[in-house]
This record gives sequence, C-alpha cells and structure tokens, in this order.
Amino acid sequence: MSGRNDIDALIDLMARLPGLGPRSARRAVLHLIRKRALLLTPLSDLMQTVAATARECLNCGNVGTGDICEICSNDARANGLLCVVEDVADLWAMERSGTFKGRYHVLGGTLSALDSIGPDELRIPKLIDRVTSEEITEVILALNATVDGQTTAHYIADQLEGRVALSSLAQGVPIGGELDYLDDGTISAALTARKRL
Amino acid sequence: MSGRNDIDALIDLMARLPGLGPRSARRAVLHLIRKRALLLTPLSDLMQTVAATARECLNCGNVGTGDICEICSNDARANGLLCVVEDVADLWAMERSGTFKGRYHVLGGTLSALDSIGPDELRIPKLIDRVTSEEITEVILALNATVDGQTTAHYIADQLEGRVALSSLAQGVPIGGELDYLDDGTISAALTARKRL
Ligand SMILES: [Zn+2]
Ligand SMILES: [Zn+2]
Repeated sequence: MSGRNDIDALIDLMARLPGLGPRSARRAVLHLIRKRALLLTPLSDLMQTVAATARECLNCGNVGTGDICEICSNDARANGLLCVVEDVADLWAMERSGTFKGRYHVLGGTLSALDSIGPDELRIPKLIDRVTSEEITEVILALNATVDGQTTAHYIADQLEGRVALSSLAQGVPIGGELDYLDDGTISAALTARKRL
Repeated sequence: MSGRNDIDALIDLMARLPGLGPRSARRAVLHLIRKRALLLTPLSDLMQTVAATARECLNCGNVGTGDICEICSNDARANGLLCVVEDVADLWAMERSGTFKGRYHVLGGTLSALDSIGPDELRIPKLIDRVTSEEITEVILALNATVDGQTTAHYIADQLEGRVALSSLAQGVPIGGELDYLDDGTISAALTARKRL
C-alpha cells in the first residue's frame, strides 16, 4: 500500500495549493504521472532548486535568490520612485505592465482590525526607513481598491505626509473594459474622475 | 538572473497542470515559496518518489507502484466482476464509493472517430483477453454518460455478447454526467441498481 499512499499524500499536498481542490488535485496528479518525464520530474527538480534558493528580499519583500533582490540591487532603478504593493503577485503584475522603472516595497498584506494585523505585522516600519535612507522623492500607493487596501493606504499616507510626495494609481474603467461587467464602485469612481476631451 | 528564471520556469510548468492557468500558477508558486518547509520541500520530495515509483498496471491500466497494481494483485477481489472505466480518475471515484469489490479495467479513453481513436488505441483487446483468462462472470460498463462513452460501451457490448453477462450503471448517472463529478452516494446507488444489458 506504500506506493498508493505516496500518490494519496501527493494529492493531499497539491490540494493545499490555492486554486486547487481535491478533485482538481487528483486530475493534476494523474496528469503528472502520465507526463512523468515531461512534467513530473522537471517540476520536482525545479521545486527543489527554488526551495533551496528562493528567499524574500530583506529590503523590499520581493522574492529573489539573494538577501537583496535584483530590483533593489539594480542601481538604474534608484530613480526616487517607490511603489508600495500588498504582495509579490502585485509586484509581478506591475512589472508585466512594463511601465514602472523605480523600486518596490511589498507590505505583505493589509492592515486588518478583524485579523489583528497592525503596522508591525506588515513591512510598514521598513517602508518609513527606506523613504529617508534611499532618497525617495515619490511614494506610489498601488494597493488594491478594497476596504482593507484603502485603509492601509490612508494609514501610510498619514505616516509619510510632509516627508515625501504621495500618489495612488488612477481609478477608472480598465482598457477594454465593458461597463456592464464593472462593479458600481468602479463606474462611480471613473465618473467622478472623468476627463474633459 | 538565474534564480528569477527558475521561479519563472516553475510558474510555467505549474501553469501546464489541468485546472491552473498562468495567474493561479503564479499564486501557487508564491504560496509554495512562503510555505517552503511545510509545502514546497515535501511536495518536491513526494513528486520525486512518485516519479520514481508510479506506473500503469500492465493488466488493468490503474496507477500503482508495481507492474501489477494492488487491486489486480488482491485475490479477494477476483470475484468474477470486472468494472470497465474510461480513466484512472473514474476508477478512484468508484473506489471512493466503497461499493464495488471486484476488479477494474481502465480503457484509457473512449472510441472517437473524430480523434481517430479506435479499439487498438484503447485497452479493448486486453479487456477481451481478461474476460476469458480471469474467469470473469460479469462485465460492468461504467463509462461516462456522454456520446463517446456510450458509443464505446455499445462497441464493447457487441464484442463480448454471449461470452459474459453485461451490465451498465443504473439510471441515476445524469445525462452528460462524468463519474468523477458525482458524489459517492450517487455512484453507490447507481452501482447497486445496475441493469443487465
Ligand atoms: Zn528587493
Ligand atoms: Zn491492475
């Protein structure tokens, strides 16, 4: 029974990934077994490598392979702009847009009274340090447009007011967005921030 | 850049799993990096073990660790009943229902004129061998209630007619329903009320 137990254990672990439930974990594991050489073995090897090398940047919270990530180590990105995001997935999304050439600060979540997450549970003290030590001229608060995200943005803005220029991402209709698919809040914000043509 | 490339490569491989797209693969990889000791390392180790040991049973097509799977090796399950399923996920679904005590035969798909999958692309010749060599008294055709599933069931019924009793799962399997989507109770009830063909 040991072999079957390994497969079951693998299914259980896979089911703990975000976006996979028990059923999709079973499908994924069968797929992996069928594609042993093409997928299962390379995946296992890469996971081992990433487990051995990946770590959080001590400066910004991004994921990289050294104590300091590539973006923080890249002098060309020390342009005075610091973009504050909630998590690494948001940093990656910003990087894919290819528009931002400054540095990031990953908070690691949002303030939440309900989950008793205060400033010290996030990377907020480190953010305040960086604003002075790295000669930051503008902090862009790119937090999610959720209640917790906006509460966190306001808290940070209060802490940094008068010490640095502050901005946030413009709110509006996404490119290619259809009004009928947008929530009321987005439409309302886009209307309030409407531009004269 | 090599480290970041490993993380990107891991995301690309994860995105090739059924049920995960690029976005959920990125979320999964970030989750894995955060839960390195609890999830990433054990997952990598288990994948390595499964890659080294898992194989298809030469007799029935089930996934196990030897040339012959546990069910085929278990004499207590040689009760003359042989349940034919499309794939291993369906076999697992049948086993979870806990009702069936015989053996299985995994076809590996369904006949499909469109995809030019004929009997020899599936485990149909092997099925016909087993009916005689394993003293099978009844073949239960537990194929999905899809057009291809039922076409395949009819083809197999034609081949085995007069050589063995044939049955199929009772109505209760919804039209267009796939076994792996059903709850255990439905499978159980359909099996108990199976009809002779
Ligand atoms: Zn960094
Ligand atoms: Zn077997």
